[in-house]
Amino acid sequence: MESVTIKDIARMCDVGVSTVSRAINNSPGINVATKQRILKVIEENNYVPNNSARNLKRIKSETIAVLVKGINNSFFSPMITEFEKGIQDEQYTFILQRVDQNQDEIDVALEIEKEKKLKGIVFLGGYFSHSKEKLNKLKVPFVLSTIGMQDIELHKEFASVAVDDEMESFKIVDYLCSLGHKKIAILAASEDDESIGKLRMLGYKRALKKNGIEFDKNLVFELIEGNDRYSVKSGYITTKKMLQLDVQCTAVYAITDAIAIGACRAIWESGKKVPDDYSIAGFDGLEIARYYIPSITTIRQPVEEMARETLRLLFGMINNKPNIKDNIIFSGELIVGESTKRLELD
Amino acid sequence: MESVTIKDIARMCDVGVSTVSRAINNSPGINVATKQRILKVIEENNYVPNNSARNLKRIKSETIAVLVKGINNSFFSPMITEFEKGIQDEQYTFILQRVDQNQDEIDVALEIEKEKKLKGIVFLGGYFSHSKEKLNKLKVPFVLSTIGMQDIELHKEFASVAVDDEMESFKIVDYLCSLGHKKIAILAASEDDESIGKLRMLGYKRALKKNGIEFDKNLVFELIEGNDRYSVKSGYITTKKMLQLDVQCTAVYAITDAIAIGACRAIWESGKKVPDDYSIAGFDGLEIARYYIPSITTIRQPVEEMARETLRLLFGMINNKPNIKDNIIFSGELIVGESTKRLELD
Repeated sequence: MESVTIKDIARMCDVGVSTVSRAINNSPGINVATKQRILKVIEENNYVPNNSARNLKRIKSETIAVLVKGINNSFFSPMITEFEKGIQDEQYTFILQRVDQNQDEIDVALEIEKEKKLKGIVFLGGYFSHSKEKLNKLKVPFVLSTIGMQDIELHKEFASVAVDDEMESFKIVDYLCSLGHKKIAILAASEDDESIGKLRMLGYKRALKKNGIEFDKNLVFELIEGNDRYSVKSGYITTKKMLQLDVQCTAVYAITDAIAIGACRAIWESGKKVPDDYSIAGFDGLEIARYYIPSITTIRQPVEEMARETLRLLFGMINNKPNIKDNIIFSGELIVGESTKRLELD
Repeated sequence: MESVTIKDIARMCDVGVSTVSRAINNSPGINVATKQRILKVIEENNYVPNNSARNLKRIKSETIAVLVKGINNSFFSPMITEFEKGIQDEQYTFILQRVDQNQDEIDVALEIEKEKKLKGIVFLGGYFSHSKEKLNKLKVPFVLSTIGMQDIELHKEFASVAVDDEMESFKIVDYLCSLGHKKIAILAASEDDESIGKLRMLGYKRALKKNGIEFDKNLVFELIEGNDRYSVKSGYITTKKMLQLDVQCTAVYAITDAIAIGACRAIWESGKKVPDDYSIAGFDGLEIARYYIPSITTIRQPVEEMARETLRLLFGMINNKPNIKDNIIFSGELIVGESTKRLELD
């Protein structure tokens, strides 16, 4: 006779597997009568629950710290979830540390390192212009995750996971050009700002050049300053300003999906339509971009895979081979949504 | 003579304050030429930067743990940001710990407590049906933040911060009724599920009753099971199913904004319109709800204030008065968006 599984029990009780699990684990969130009914069926069928789920894993006091620049950027949410899960699976304690826009993340990391139980660090987000000497001060293994770097050669000396922001940005702007758009505004970080925003700007310029379109600085709109510059609100405010200037453009490239959503809302409020009056393209592949009306044409970064790969590199360095510094470049995926359309010539 | 401020320097250099700050702090993310220009202006004007920003705060090795049920729920993102900031301001290390839907958060907390440096705990999200005896096993101070509880009397024995989910839910459904809607579907958690979903369901039923509308279980649509049940995707899938059944309703109450957004998208894809064919109401007051097209009618929970109040209670217990267990109930705010309208009678 086949042994009874948790799915069989769930079917017999006409409840979901998670409800059976709750009954077995004596968890909250289950109605008492339902629980008794399930436990009765379990007993009658001699079902033996798998113990592993019941024994809470011992959490090590050793810790992994994730230092994140731009913590309120929703791009990082699924990555942080993945880090938290992966770090717990390896039975480390997970420390999440915000780094302010103007703070030096290496100084913050060196401070956390004084805590002797720290075994590894993930730097998440931002843009690195630190010297090799400074980075080498860190004693525990670390991985640079979705971080732009000024110095490509230096980049190779440290473990990292990212997409090629310049190339992916080129890809989506080239796509806008392929739809016939020639006047493409960009909602971008300020010129001083050397973050991924700079790399995405470089990709924008290269795509224009390839398509024989001259770069026009009147089509560059600077986002608000500060921690929230890549946010929905920032895109909304900047687009409102752009619309007041009555700029002649047929497409807008927002360097993040959040900015693109803010742009769509501002355009909608002005009585214009996306994509009929303006095609809008974003970057990142946020889940909400797919459910927005219109859904946003974007470059999807494989965030979950990138987070898992970051941890694989980190645990590899912690457990075996501290000297192997891999650089993993993921490909972004062009997702064509409803926010862009071919330019109709008059 | 007035002393020169950072704002003056920024104005003289024609850059933002944050750029000046980057130059002073020797932070990355600033163009070398800009930095030199700023430093020169600073020198010429004898500007003395405030040192506090430069001296990185010493981080204590003592920790505060935030245990969150439903970590991928975007409702918690701004709260986690606020916790992280507030905990760092008090110079504690911030530990973020995910609790699975079927895990017992007290067991997880007791495990973390073995780590001797833990000074306090925030339980975030979920629904508590633990006994007093079990909760009293915890030795460090803790606060229940945005958690529903089965036993109101028990609730009073522990520090907590929340909105009244039943009452706020009543408020928004009563608003739908006031617009003339009588057939109001609800996208709700499964009947077994005893989370805030249960409290919001109770508010829905009470509002119907007050308005002389009979509760109709054919208008109750159960969300998908699992950690993602309050997500955009869950709302989308559930609404697709509802539309296939060709249910007679004029309004839909989604028990979270994320669900409401998924519902709007599903309705839009079916060729119907919000609010012309269906009025949609959500709950939570997510930022994206305001920027969605249409913007979502919702109950805004003051999440930042709730997070700050949670920490105030916690630090109060840690530092002075471990025996004071306050229960803070915040009021939600009805935000009327574009997703609802008065029912036009034929």
